[in-house]
Amino acid sequence: MHKPARIRMAHGAGARLTGELVAEVFAASFGGPVLSRLEDSAEVYLPGSRLAFTTDCHVVRPLFFPGGDIGRLAVCGTVNDLAVKGARPRFLSLGFILAEGLELEMLERVARSVGAAAREAGAEVVAGDTKVVEAAAADGIFITSSGVGEIPAGRNLSIASAREGDLLVLSGNIAEHGVAVLDARESLGLGRDFASDCAPLNALVECACSAAPGLRALRDPTRGGLASVCLEIAAASGRRLVVDETALPIRPPVRAACEILGLDPLYVANEGLFVAVVPPDQAEALLKALRADPRGSDAAVIGRVERGNGDAEVETEAGGRRRLAWVEGEPLPRIC
Amino acid sequence: MHKPARIRMAHGAGARLTGELVAEVFAASFGGPVLSRLEDSAEVYLPGSRLAFTTDCHVVRPLFFPGGDIGRLAVCGTVNDLAVKGARPRFLSLGFILAEGLELEMLERVARSVGAAAREAGAEVVAGDTKVVEAAAADGIFITSSGVGEIPAGRNLSIASAREGDLLVLSGNIAEHGVAVLDARESLGLGRDFASDCAPLNALVECACSAAPGLRALRDPTRGGLASVCLEIAAASGRRLVVDETALPIRPPVRAACEILGLDPLYVANEGLFVAVVPPDQAEALLKALRADPRGSDAAVIGRVERGNGDAEVETEAGGRRRLAWVEGEPLPRIC
Repeated sequence: MHKPARIRMAHGAGARLTGELVAEVFAASFGGPVLSRLEDSAEVYLPGSRLAFTTDCHVVRPLFFPGGDIGRLAVCGTVNDLAVKGARPRFLSLGFILAEGLELEMLERVARSVGAAAREAGAEVVAGDTKVVEAAAADGIFITSSGVGEIPAGRNLSIASAREGDLLVLSGNIAEHGVAVLDARESLGLGRDFASDCAPLNALVECACSAAPGLRALRDPTRGGLASVCLEIAAASGRRLVVDETALPIRPPVRAACEILGLDPLYVANEGLFVAVVPPDQAEALLKALRADPRGSDAAVIGRVERGNGDAEVETEAGGRRRLAWVEGEPLPRIC
Repeated sequence: MHKPARIRMAHGAGARLTGELVAEVFAASFGGPVLSRLEDSAEVYLPGSRLAFTTDCHVVRPLFFPGGDIGRLAVCGTVNDLAVKGARPRFLSLGFILAEGLELEMLERVARSVGAAAREAGAEVVAGDTKVVEAAAADGIFITSSGVGEIPAGRNLSIASAREGDLLVLSGNIAEHGVAVLDARESLGLGRDFASDCAPLNALVECACSAAPGLRALRDPTRGGLASVCLEIAAASGRRLVVDETALPIRPPVRAACEILGLDPLYVANEGLFVAVVPPDQAEALLKALRADPRGSDAAVIGRVERGNGDAEVETEAGGRRRLAWVEGEPLPRIC
């Protein structure tokens, strides 16, 4: 890369510049074979155990938004990174960096929300740390959540294993989280129609694994949206991912909000959604199982894997195709 | 507690107010049986494994100081929290919250330091995350490090198990880290005599466990210093800890700096030090083994466990005794 001299907001967006930072600064300095796989969770082995281990920093603004808050987000982000590796989330840790002067009542609301989300996911918070910095040095509450999960024997999900002919199944509507946070942050007043989809996905993942035992991979399209996840799967598998625009589940008010805001919903963050790569003969069973769960009621087949070279395309309503490009940064900073 | 309405710096100091925050806000909202034990690492079980899991936020100022930097501190802090539970540190994760505009060169130096410290500890960084916030919203680099370690069968260290007659062995000189960081931060120019003791302790812990198989407990006196750790051991075991002031290993320039700064070295942070609680008949063997290692060359017996009621005292040079008190906050904020 042409190395920039200073950190830009886009370095934290989970898109191209973040990838370069991870590869050229972090992996180069302290990466080993596990880190360099760049999965959502690291898979590690200890005698007798197959574990997933992951971490996520949360800096969302505002701290509270329709459908969630930074506490729920911290739990769900880590639970979901474990779940899409096929791991059962067991133990969570939370590191709080607080700004001096923060209202205690706000912290209590966030902590209660952490508790509720952890119970919902069936995971236990077992470790934590708190630091306080001067009001000028931080912005309310930052939470870094880490998690340990257990990968059941025989379960081997990896985005590298997508094959020609596989279908892409999305578990629900896109762009809900990003639009809800943006509406709350900018006081856009777009309406009461928006709420983040922020939710733990581990139960739905178990349901998917049972319904489609041949499931190849799962990925949750958070920062960078569905487009970035498709590009990641394409890059890891060396195939082409083709998304059918007409098949994408998106609620009309969310689509309208994206149009008003000039956002491509394919790049907007989600926090309660996964994409599954599944052999074609198991797609129907997977879809049926997902739709039977309230969190998966809008699940749809949204595309397929073709022979290719690590690229991704969208089939448009008009029948044409456009290439999906990596974005350099997130159009919506501090979305999670 | 008399609940304050707002977060104060002291809530992040690892002393009394932090304890109240953890108990009354965090544990009340999301704590389970493991979290409420409040050990340095959580001990958790998965089929076939006995694991330690811990997390630490690092917000030290300045980012670089004699003897270390925030990257080395993040690795050592987590490695040492695992080690004092008797766990062998295996896997680390790092979450970076960066301020927009940070010089990339600075981040690279920190990342290299992470790599060097992880290699020194024999642990692998397997997961990470990066977020960037506006320059006004954070202060350079915050790092939250988490770690997973393996607890060997038969090893059961717990600060609750200190008994009357046990001796306290300290692995080295006190107050080095706090004085070095303060000197660097405030440009006190106290001299070139100061360097943080920041180091991974896992090898020295293994050495201690071999030399003293009856070892009851270890604890690393970071924020809050040796005094806070003695109070924690006393509280957990329901005994009295007595520290012999004349036996405390402290280098003369560090003692002089503390006097100039009005700091009690018993409350100053360390980052490469542990206190061991050991049955009296194994203290000599432990001391000998520690002193054979360069990191333990200043090890000393510094006190003992008596019948008591969760309190701690210092025997002064004059032969009197003074009670050790919990401090409300850290005299030196952002020391780690």
